[in-house]
Amino acid sequence: MRVLVLGGDGFCGWPSALHLSRQGHEVVIVDNLSRRNIDNELEVQSLTPIQPLSTRLQVWRELTGKTIGFERLDVVTEYDRLLQTLQAWRPGAVVHFAEQRAAPYSMKSSWHKRYTVNNNLNATNNILSAIVESGLDIHLVHLGTMGVYGYSSVGVELPEGYLRVKMIAADGAEVEQEILYPPNPGSIYHLTKTQDQLFFAFYNKNDDVRITDLHQGIVWGTQTRETCLDERLINRFDYDGDYGTVLNRFLMQAAIDYPLTVHGSGGQTRAFIHIQDTVRCIELAIVNAPAPGDRVKILNQMTETHRLIDLANLVADLTGAEVEHVPNPRREADANDLSVTNAGLLGLGLRPTTLREGLLREVTEVAKRYASRCDRKRIPCVSAWTQRNRSGGAAVAKVGGAGR
Amino acid sequence: MRVLVLGGDGFCGWPSALHLSRQGHEVVIVDNLSRRNIDNELEVQSLTPIQPLSTRLQVWRELTGKTIGFERLDVVTEYDRLLQTLQAWRPGAVVHFAEQRAAPYSMKSSWHKRYTVNNNLNATNNILSAIVESGLDIHLVHLGTMGVYGYSSVGVELPEGYLRVKMIAADGAEVEQEILYPPNPGSIYHLTKTQDQLFFAFYNKNDDVRITDLHQGIVWGTQTRETCLDERLINRFDYDGDYGTVLNRFLMQAAIDYPLTVHGSGGQTRAFIHIQDTVRCIELAIVNAPAPGDRVKILNQMTETHRLIDLANLVADLTGAEVEHVPNPRREADANDLSVTNAGLLGLGLRPTTLREGLLREVTEVAKRYASRCDRKRIPCVSAWTQRNRSGGAAVAKVGGAGR
Repeated sequence: MRVLVLGGDGFCGWPSALHLSRQGHEVVIVDNLSRRNIDNELEVQSLTPIQPLSTRLQVWRELTGKTIGFERLDVVTEYDRLLQTLQAWRPGAVVHFAEQRAAPYSMKSSWHKRYTVNNNLNATNNILSAIVESGLDIHLVHLGTMGVYGYSSVGVELPEGYLRVKMIAADGAEVEQEILYPPNPGSIYHLTKTQDQLFFAFYNKNDDVRITDLHQGIVWGTQTRETCLDERLINRFDYDGDYGTVLNRFLMQAAIDYPLTVHGSGGQTRAFIHIQDTVRCIELAIVNAPAPGDRVKILNQMTETHRLIDLANLVADLTGAEVEHVPNPRREADANDLSVTNAGLLGLGLRPTTLREGLLREVTEVAKRYASRCDRKRIPCVSAWTQRNRSGGAAVAKVGGAGR
Repeated sequence: MRVLVLGGDGFCGWPSALHLSRQGHEVVIVDNLSRRNIDNELEVQSLTPIQPLSTRLQVWRELTGKTIGFERLDVVTEYDRLLQTLQAWRPGAVVHFAEQRAAPYSMKSSWHKRYTVNNNLNATNNILSAIVESGLDIHLVHLGTMGVYGYSSVGVELPEGYLRVKMIAADGAEVEQEILYPPNPGSIYHLTKTQDQLFFAFYNKNDDVRITDLHQGIVWGTQTRETCLDERLINRFDYDGDYGTVLNRFLMQAAIDYPLTVHGSGGQTRAFIHIQDTVRCIELAIVNAPAPGDRVKILNQMTETHRLIDLANLVADLTGAEVEHVPNPRREADANDLSVTNAGLLGLGLRPTTLREGLLREVTEVAKRYASRCDRKRIPCVSAWTQRNRSGGAAVAKVGGAGR
């Protein structure tokens, strides 16, 4: 199938593009290189030495004989080119990674809140509007987040998007309905993904657009079978306070003998998935598209849940690192239970990569190998969720400044 | 109280600004004049001869001795000036009318969808972000719409924003929760208001912003006690296919001996409110602000529900006009029940203006009086919700072309 990968130069997009290409799909990457530009803004770089996109694509062609196309295009500001790209390539599926994806970055300042809202919401709407205007029957596959559900414990297992409820009328009568699980986002970034869900429901209802929304857990790991083939295909590894996800941060910290920084008690429970499983899920979503007339298909793209403190202790046991609690810059529950179903993707054939089998390899093959590229002062998260938490953010920064 | 009225030159904003000024509030209008510019785009004008804003403000000053301030400012593209305006005026409340508010306009084309999304969502986020950045304790009053609930009959009376439900777990266990009523928007315009609700819930939870969201029914009528004081204060009256709301369209059609055009069967039931009651509700919302720490206060701002065919027949009885069914350009249920509570605003002191008492006066004092300004070919709604409905739209246009 011909597949457009929007955001195909990013952390999930790049390995997904390679995996789809290897599986025989004809892949075209659309990207505005915003992720590399944000590295410039934040004065950080991927721990791993990622190559320019043209080098990546040339190496892939040399190694496999497969060509991946590339259009440098901003889906927010260049709608007409986006539409022309759909009309020219006539893809069967579009994978939408073209959003700002870091919660701390989205909370750094008023500007970052506004950038994230403007970028993510206009990107999603432009893509949907272009699909409708093109008149083509294109299946849209979107990377959502488990964070749309929120992490307050309500006592039901998180379903795959839809929840059966009994609506209670004023007179006490009960009416059973299936609804989108009530959203409870924890950051501006997560908020935009809950708003994306409403775009999908509307365009599906009004225009019969076929859509799969993948609610992904926190990704860990760096490499996939394809990015391992040559060092010039290596995937990015973010360890900075804005883009580094929690488990990758722990792995990095362990590799450079820096304490594993746990925000608050560490009782927060979150869902996780390895990047290798991410790329597999994307392909499973593409080849198992909803039928015409189906509602939006929502799948939970995660394989394990863990308390953050347990993960820190696990990494500490494997590596001998210390664990250090620092004030939590986020406004969130200090502890929560989390029970999630991922029956959909398991049923389609996903075989999860477990933490136990992959963690140590990540430390030695990635974090330790490139440790000399680490800028220790970029590790702490200095984004505070509220004015009230700003002192907390400063305290975190101080720990980072004392990096050893 | 000092009140900023964003969108204070529009159909609801202008009479609200006058009403608040007369009630003793210190009012500043913020507007980018987008509504007048859209008149230029659509090549239509208000049936009533509205004056330039500076004339309106000067007449108000001469008549009442009260000064209403004005800042011409685009809240989407001029964030810094918006923030400076908050810091300079330090208002106690901001009333947010600064959104594109017509469902048919939002569905005219891909461009109109994208304009509505970009304008409405960035406006709301910019305002909330500016309130947080200002550090001021400002109460935000927002004009939402009854359309966030959708019009499919689910068998419960529509509550004021929040609904008690029993969430049904996979094992059949039930957990009771109060949630935002599950949204079901019928157009891109309505969609943006459902996404606004998520902005409000997030900024309220994360930043303790005090917010009232008014879910307004379809407004009818033109004049309020203040806009009646001088013809130069007259409010706008939209009768065109994009901005004319259904009841005002019937009144106009009756006044010029044009058949009352009912989309589909007319079995659609909708909620209504007179513009005089709108301005009263805005003031009630301002003087009854949520306390610090309260969740978003949601009130249903409507006074009556009617089936569209019943309204058409009522206007026909009053005026002798004919009723004509035309294909429905929207994708919506052909008939629905609607039961809504508006206990909140009634409890605060709203005394509804009824259709029976106001309808005929609107026909004679407004529609007939300015009938010579009507451009008949602008009456039909030519915006089709989907490709499939475009032939319907064309059929409507043909009826309009035959206007008699």
